[in-house]
Amino acid sequence: MPAVNRRFLLKTRPEGRVGAHNFQLVREPVPRLADGEVLVRNTWLSLDPTNRGWMTDAPGYMPPVAIGEVMRGFGLGRVVESRNPDHPEGQLVQGLTGWQDHAVFAAAEPPMVIPPALTGLPPSWHLGALGMTGLTAYFGLTEAVAVRPGDTVVISAAGGAVGSVAGQIVKILGGRAVGVAGGPEKCAWLVDELGFDAAVDYKADDWRQQLKAATPDGIDVDFENVGGPVMEAVFSRLNIGARVALCGLISGYNDAAPLGPRNFGALIAKRATLQGFLVLDHFPRYHEAATQLARWIDDGLLVHRETVVEGLEQAPDALNMLFDGHNTGKLVVHIAD
Amino acid sequence: MPAVNRRFLLKTRPEGRVGAHNFQLVREPVPRLADGEVLVRNTWLSLDPTNRGWMTDAPGYMPPVAIGEVMRGFGLGRVVESRNPDHPEGQLVQGLTGWQDHAVFAAAEPPMVIPPALTGLPPSWHLGALGMTGLTAYFGLTEAVAVRPGDTVVISAAGGAVGSVAGQIVKILGGRAVGVAGGPEKCAWLVDELGFDAAVDYKADDWRQQLKAATPDGIDVDFENVGGPVMEAVFSRLNIGARVALCGLISGYNDAAPLGPRNFGALIAKRATLQGFLVLDHFPRYHEAATQLARWIDDGLLVHRETVVEGLEQAPDALNMLFDGHNTGKLVVHIAD
Repeated sequence: MPAVNRRFLLKTRPEGRVGAHNFQLVREPVPRLADGEVLVRNTWLSLDPTNRGWMTDAPGYMPPVAIGEVMRGFGLGRVVESRNPDHPEGQLVQGLTGWQDHAVFAAAEPPMVIPPALTGLPPSWHLGALGMTGLTAYFGLTEAVAVRPGDTVVISAAGGAVGSVAGQIVKILGGRAVGVAGGPEKCAWLVDELGFDAAVDYKADDWRQQLKAATPDGIDVDFENVGGPVMEAVFSRLNIGARVALCGLISGYNDAAPLGPRNFGALIAKRATLQGFLVLDHFPRYHEAATQLARWIDDGLLVHRETVVEGLEQAPDALNMLFDGHNTGKLVVHIAD
Repeated sequence: MPAVNRRFLLKTRPEGRVGAHNFQLVREPVPRLADGEVLVRNTWLSLDPTNRGWMTDAPGYMPPVAIGEVMRGFGLGRVVESRNPDHPEGQLVQGLTGWQDHAVFAAAEPPMVIPPALTGLPPSWHLGALGMTGLTAYFGLTEAVAVRPGDTVVISAAGGAVGSVAGQIVKILGGRAVGVAGGPEKCAWLVDELGFDAAVDYKADDWRQQLKAATPDGIDVDFENVGGPVMEAVFSRLNIGARVALCGLISGYNDAAPLGPRNFGALIAKRATLQGFLVLDHFPRYHEAATQLARWIDDGLLVHRETVVEGLEQAPDALNMLFDGHNTGKLVVHIAD
């Protein structure tokens, strides 16, 4: 165990894009444990659009990260020291480790244990298809909107961690999956490798025509991750009784004053049901969902893909990859083996 | 029966406020009936915010009124000639009569029959608390969002036809009713006469503080009729698991490019459920709902109020009263006795 714990502390709140200047990287001793605590060696860090929201002081579903506090983030690692019998040394866990080498979890807020049957899989998968982003897709499609066979489902940010899994689950559930992603390569990947029925390149001039062509019978379900003009175009093509799973609005996260959907009234005309949801409400069913997702991977129905950034020190810059669309699939930082 | 049928034809699509110049008032012979048709002498015309939407060529839940076509509108009257045995002469009916003295209903799209037990009530009530606007409040609160005892429900446009009934139904259902309306008189009326628990005057400088003071435990249900800054303020005070009944967005109806809610993401953070709805989907339950609403009036639990404009020729200008907040309760035009 290294004697030093590298930690990214939030120094300033970003305006627009995040940069290294928003953080202070400090080196502190690895903390000593109090009774009931466990020490986790963080080996993989998850980068997610929601991280950006935590850096603002706007109200959200969690309190903002305080200035001077370690940057909040989801990570995965092994218990290396334990004063909690529920979490013995060597146990593979994940949770809000923060952007640091070592994280302490108190007994009142313990880490989530990786299902023992799944510990043989590549660890980073537990942050992706088998973790928070996979669960977001899973519970969004099975709970927030219950996708039915025959539903045409449009998924924005379909090349990302949530969207790429979501489209594949739509196919498993018998729906028609239409992904919206940036660039011909990502679009080809969605259709050719992941089995989406169609993909819309939102960077192409004719993206509206592409969306129309891909949804000739209208849209039954919007799995919404982005917001902005694409969401408005999707709203305008909703069928009567359509459902919207409101998962994220990444297009506005770097924007101090994001715009809302200008055709909000389409939700009245189409008698739409919109459900805002957060994966954290579904954590009690983590093992059930992860086991199901792993089975689908094993059966060849679900492909996991990730973009790996090497080194904890890259985390601040790497976060922007999410907003620039420079990741494909799940974006993770490899901290240590 | 007069030999002449006055009809307001749509001449031009309005930009901003509606005016007489958008219509052509023509005098035509009263039409002769084909088999299966009935002729209704229109005595009361309902003016509703949705009328404004029908005048645009934007997509909506019904096709736009065509240029040169009679202006669409809900009205009430008696069958004065009939070639349909389901609708004998003398029957009191309502439906899409249009802005005219006489309306013909084909067998395929018959008028709605006023429940016989309720024909002794003032006829205009069947366009208000016992009609489309009353049903909008009723089904919005009992179906789109099922209000439960103890819910804090905020109702925008609470001084209007839908909102004033909605707040009273909230009280009947055991909820806490907070109305948003324009001006101290309307606010006092909501609390003192209709029994709302609190009212917020959106024209007052301190309306945000008023909203906060009126909802100390947050907001469980938003019965949304208006949109704009008030809706944003309500969104920001939603409790986790809140429900939004999206009924109307009147603040944007005169606006060629209305803005959407800038804090749309609050629906994610609060895991809110939003239901867009239209009363027309509930027409099959008209008699059941009207009977219940009439019983509440009879029991003194529900007060009906209306603003009456005299004369069909006033309809174009009167429509603006809805957008200026110059009506209290249901706005109707008295055409004939």
